Amino acid sequence: MANQTSKQIFKTLLSFFLFVLLLSDTVSSVRKSINLKKPCKRFVLHFHNIAYDGDNADNATSATIVNPLGLGDFSFGKFVIYDNPLTMDENYLSEPVARAQGFFFYNKKTTYNSWFASTLIFNSTQHKGTLTLIDANPFMEPTRDLSIVGGTGDFIMSRGVVTFTTDFFEGSKYFRIKMDIKLYECY
Amino acid sequence: MANQTSKQIFKTLLSFFLFVLLLSDTVSSVRKSINLKKPCKRFVLHFHNIAYDGDNADNATSATIVNPLGLGDFSFGKFVIYDNPLTMDENYLSEPVARAQGFFFYNKKTTYNSWFASTLIFNSTQHKGTLTLIDANPFMEPTRDLSIVGGTGDFIMSRGVVTFTTDFFEGSKYFRIKMDIKLYECY
Amino acid sequence: MANQTSKQIFKTLLSFFLFVLLLSDTVSSVRKSINLKKPCKRFVLHFHNIAYDGDNADNATSATIVNPLGLGDFSFGKFVIYDNPLTMDENYLSEPVARAQGFFFYNKKTTYNSWFASTLIFNSTQHKGTLTLIDANPFMEPTRDLSIVGGTGDFIMSRGVVTFTTDFFEGSKYFRIKMDIKLYECY
Repeated sequence: MANQTSKQIFKTLLSFFLFVLLLSDTVSSVRKSINLKKPCKRFVLHFHNIAYDGDNADNATSATIVNPLGLGDFSFGKFVIYDNPLTMDENYLSEPVARAQGFFFYNKKTTYNSWFASTLIFNSTQHKGTLTLIDANPFMEPTRDLSIVGGTGDFIMSRGVVTFTTDFFEGSKYFRIKMDIKLYECY
Repeated sequence: MANQTSKQIFKTLLSFFLFVLLLSDTVSSVRKSINLKKPCKRFVLHFHNIAYDGDNADNATSATIVNPLGLGDFSFGKFVIYDNPLTMDENYLSEPVARAQGFFFYNKKTTYNSWFASTLIFNSTQHKGTLTLIDANPFMEPTRDLSIVGGTGDFIMSRGVVTFTTDFFEGSKYFRIKMDIKLYECY
Repeated sequence: MANQTSKQIFKTLLSFFLFVLLLSDTVSSVRKSINLKKPCKRFVLHFHNIAYDGDNADNATSATIVNPLGLGDFSFGKFVIYDNPLTMDENYLSEPVARAQGFFFYNKKTTYNSWFASTLIFNSTQHKGTLTLIDANPFMEPTRDLSIVGGTGDFIMSRGVVTFTTDFFEGSKYFRIKMDIKLYECY
């Protein structure tokens, strides 16, 4: 009788093992585990772009290096390089907590649209490292998601998505983007 | 007595199982599992590039923003920005299923060669989201692989490889690339 | 007798566990396992940039395609495209083992600073494939880390970090970067 019960339990255990075998995978190093419902890190930064107009060298944070070429009416071909401050609140005079360096260019004949590359550079007591994002930025849309493709330092090997909202602009002189940064891979 | 020992061992084993189950961390989030033999998504798109020549604003989908500088005979330094249609078949007049936005430039003295960045933008009832690829594109080779480094929307956090085949070109006026997209990370 | 059999089965089960524990992540596909203390691949290459000055077409490996625009005194806006040799040792005349193709541009008003994109192209009997890196490159710092965001061929789906050290430069004519490449994702 005891023997019979033992056999039964063994069988149960064996099935359970096979189940564990299928689901398992954990032992000796950091393993990936990605939860798209819950970013492993999330924070918001505000990106400020002040365009160089020839007279505002002291304030300018970005400059056009190639002018639009006249294909359509939406600045197709305009290419901009920037070194922009990132702040915690919306005020561009607030102390920057990081910088964003990179470029964007306009690339559509029929509406305003840009392609965007940016490295967010953290160099404070709280965070050191970089996050790099590249993607299309159809900035006439109220919000758009861009890919975060890599990172270094505190953000080593990170990936995720950043949601852009252009919450203010003044022609081509100044614009501000709210960057809602969601990392789904963290180490 | 034997039965008693058995029970004891069963209990120990069961505790161990539960422990493994708790640590195995599959419970609440997506796990990575990559099979290079079998992409988790695969599809083919055709990329059409019609160069702007000053007279074809209506048809042009791309434009040179910086001309070659005369280093060698292979357009070194020529920089092109595009907003190109992607179609399911080879006909550039077919209804685009997505767009590709980005840039490429020529960068070799001794042969034609380019460096290529592109975001594929899906905005249909079937797919919404982006895939971004960047890599060298030695387009004199019959095929070449480029890295897909990130995605958003339906392609959030995706990565993979795209195999390019230039299946048609007409000087620098028009070329078509077959993009065989293989994602190895999907969520 | 029952007791004897039970012991036998327990032993078998235990061995099976250990076996499962060891093999548990190879069952049906490659699984991710990342150890930031121990790169899965690591190697050092030397990057040589010889700027085109109008007279050195034979030796030049890079060229400025957009000149600085006069915002500050640190070449803001200068945009460079390159097809540079990568060597195993520091001598730029050594046989290249790979090439680096991409671009960089200067983007700061107050000091020298660049943003850097590069694809390392391997095409030898030992290695075939590419690695692509993009990040800020604050080259006045003794070392800086840049993100490796993707790869193809032998480096398919790879990611990691590359540490740059500018170990020699001669004004803007020539510079050499030591690239210490650490991959944390390998397949």
